[in-house]
Order: sequence, then C-alpha cells, then structure tokens
Amino acid sequence: MRPRAVVLLSGGLDSATALALAKFGGCDTYAMTFRYGQRHAVEVEAARRVAAAQGVKDHVIVDIDLRTFGGSALTSDVLVPKDGASTGIPITYVPARNTIFLSFALAWAEVLEAQRIYIGVNAVDYSGYPDCRPEFVTAFETMAGLATKAGVEGNPVRIVTPLINLPKAKIIHLGAELGVDFSITSSCYDPVDGLACGQCDSCRIRQDGFKAAGTPDVTRYAA
Amino acid sequence: MRPRAVVLLSGGLDSATALALAKFGGCDTYAMTFRYGQRHAVEVEAARRVAAAQGVKDHVIVDIDLRTFGGSALTSDVLVPKDGASTGIPITYVPARNTIFLSFALAWAEVLEAQRIYIGVNAVDYSGYPDCRPEFVTAFETMAGLATKAGVEGNPVRIVTPLINLPKAKIIHLGAELGVDFSITSSCYDPVDGLACGQCDSCRIRQDGFKAAGTPDVTRYAA
Repeated sequence: MRPRAVVLLSGGLDSATALALAKFGGCDTYAMTFRYGQRHAVEVEAARRVAAAQGVKDHVIVDIDLRTFGGSALTSDVLVPKDGASTGIPITYVPARNTIFLSFALAWAEVLEAQRIYIGVNAVDYSGYPDCRPEFVTAFETMAGLATKAGVEGNPVRIVTPLINLPKAKIIHLGAELGVDFSITSSCYDPVDGLACGQCDSCRIRQDGFKAAGTPDVTRYAA
Repeated sequence: MRPRAVVLLSGGLDSATALALAKFGGCDTYAMTFRYGQRHAVEVEAARRVAAAQGVKDHVIVDIDLRTFGGSALTSDVLVPKDGASTGIPITYVPARNTIFLSFALAWAEVLEAQRIYIGVNAVDYSGYPDCRPEFVTAFETMAGLATKAGVEGNPVRIVTPLINLPKAKIIHLGAELGVDFSITSSCYDPVDGLACGQCDSCRIRQDGFKAAGTPDVTRYAA
C-alpha cells in the first residue's frame, strides 16, 4: 500500500507546491482546507481547484470559527496593512492558527493511518510568525507522537515541511518543475471581487517571488 | 490584575473541579466548551450550568465537527460499550481530541493574554487514552511556548492539570471541599433523555468514585 499523506491546503502557491511534493514523494494525498472566518475566503475556492487539478484521494473543508477570539487582521475588523512596513510579529498573525490546523490534520491522519502530514510553512517570508519556525514544527511532531494511538504503537506521524527554508523564487521553480498551475492559486489576504489586491504583504511576497524567479506572474490582479 | 486562566469545561465532574481549582488559585476564569458531534450533547448544557454556578468571566461554546473524520464510538455510529470490559486504547478514544481542544484554548489564551490553561485530564481512570498522560501534556506545553507570541516574548502559557494523578474519590472530595455542585454535572457517554445511562465506562467510573469517596451519588440516572 502506498503511504498516505494529509496535506494542509490553503489554496495558495506554497501549499499547492507542498501537495505536488507529497504526490511526487509517492504518497496518496488527502487534502484538508479550513474555513476559519478569514477575510480571504476565495482561497477556499482556490483550494478546491488545486485539489481537483492534482487528483487528491479526498478533500475535506473544515469549518472552524476563529473569529470567536478575534486577535488578527485576517479574521477581525482590523485593516490589512498595505504599506509593506512592519517589524516583529505581524498583525496578520492568527493566534495559534498552525497549531489548530495541524491538530485537525493529526486527527485525520490518525483515522486514515497516514504516516505524514505536509504543511507548506515558510520561515523565510514569514519569519515573524512564531508557528512557521522549524523549532515549532519539531515540537509539534514530538507532541503528536505522544498524543496518538499511532505514536504509542511506535508509528508516530511525521510533519513534513519541504518549503520551510526556501525563498519564494525557489518554491516557484520547484512548483513549476512539478507541473503546479499557479494561475489557479490564490495568496492575497484581502482580495477584491475574487482578484488579488497586489498590495498586501502576501501579494508583495508573491510578486517579488515571480520577479526573482524570472517567471511571468500569472496572478490575476484587481485593476 | 489577577491572572487569567482558560479552563476546558466539558460539563463533567472533573472539569467542574478543575474550574473550581482555577478560581481557588486566584485566577479570573474563562471557560471553553466544545460541541464536537459527540453523542452526549447534554454535557454542553451541563457546562453552561457549571460555568454560571461558578461565575466565570466568559464562556465560549466552540463548534467543531469531529464527525468529519469518524474514528470513535463517541462521535460515530459505533456503539458505546456497556460491558465494562476493554483493554488497550478504548473505542471511546476520539483521535487527537485533547490536542484539538488545547489548541483552541491556546488561541484564546493568546488573545486574552491568559497565563494558564486548566484541563481536567486524568491518567488514572483514562490510562488507555494517550492524550491524558503527563508526558503528552508536557510536550504540548513545550510546543505551545514555541507556537505563540506570548511564548516568543518569554511568557509561555502553562498547561495546568491538577487532577492528572488523582483517583476519582479524591477528585470528588476536593470538588466537594471547594463547593462544586456535582448534581448539575454530566459525565455519561450515552445519556437517555438527558439522564445518565449508568452503564457506560464513564458512568461506572463515576459511580465507583462516589462509592469510594463515601459520598452520596447525586447523579440522576435513567430508570
């Protein structure tokens, strides 16, 4: 039997590439996407397109309402910054988001008896997010080994972060090499009529990535 | 300012006692309860009663659907065992449940700037559940310190498990000492018309606890 991988799929460029890597690594893939009260709900539609294009075995959309707690520009009424200037932990950081996402992935992995969880976190572009750092991922993996039946039985799930140390241009090269169609992905934090704003941090990082990669930017931007 | 504690409140006897201990420890308390597709949804009503009786600052009910993944007698169509016989990991174990619950508590703690998360897990009665063991809790705490802004800034949240090594009779004595009204709590995995079945593992453990404590069992049982 082929190994199974749960892949956290946001609909953005990074997670689409992580999914392609899981497939390339010989895994049957199970995609998991969250509707968590984010402003940029169009990314859920992007996730559906990516999952379909890459032929996953199953794709679940999990509804959780992180707005209950507030605390981030991505889920509350705080404006998404568009001036490119920020230091420290960005206002778009959602408290414990990756911990929650990985916990759900862990539950599904336990039921599927999946050996791996892929998450496309990146510590280069998102250095201000505590839960995108390698030490967080390692600690989560240790905890997961103790939390689950699989772990107790000697088969702890591995958390795979193939993009964690790559600059965006490298991720774009890698994804292109694996046949990822970036035109169906969505990275914008604050889309206008389903199109990328071109001004938020996420759009800037993506634009700079295509530029550095020397690859045409296939993103559809609002006028 | 008094320290703040997020308390995971299931509506059962243990979490009601954990809440009382958080208050007794001088914390302002914030209760969090989950509707997760469990058979025993009456426990959510019990949690409301307990939160009100103990005067929490706030109480949130978080909807998450663990039925999406199946895998447990508590959330799927598998029958809850009533014969008291089981070895290894029980069929009522819900994959990664405490990991998911603690992750949400962590998010709320981050927003509230709470210093502590109380969880009434017990490794004596629930020795077969991997995520009720002290080593799991310690690993979660380590991960949480790396996952959050508070942790990065040198104020990692503490996961407090005051009941983890206590037999049920001791928990009942402790709760009674702190004024917990056990008659409004609900522990049954498979209630009948809102009343305890008296036959599932959770009911048996509770009955034995009252017996060992030498305290009248105030639980309302189905005929």
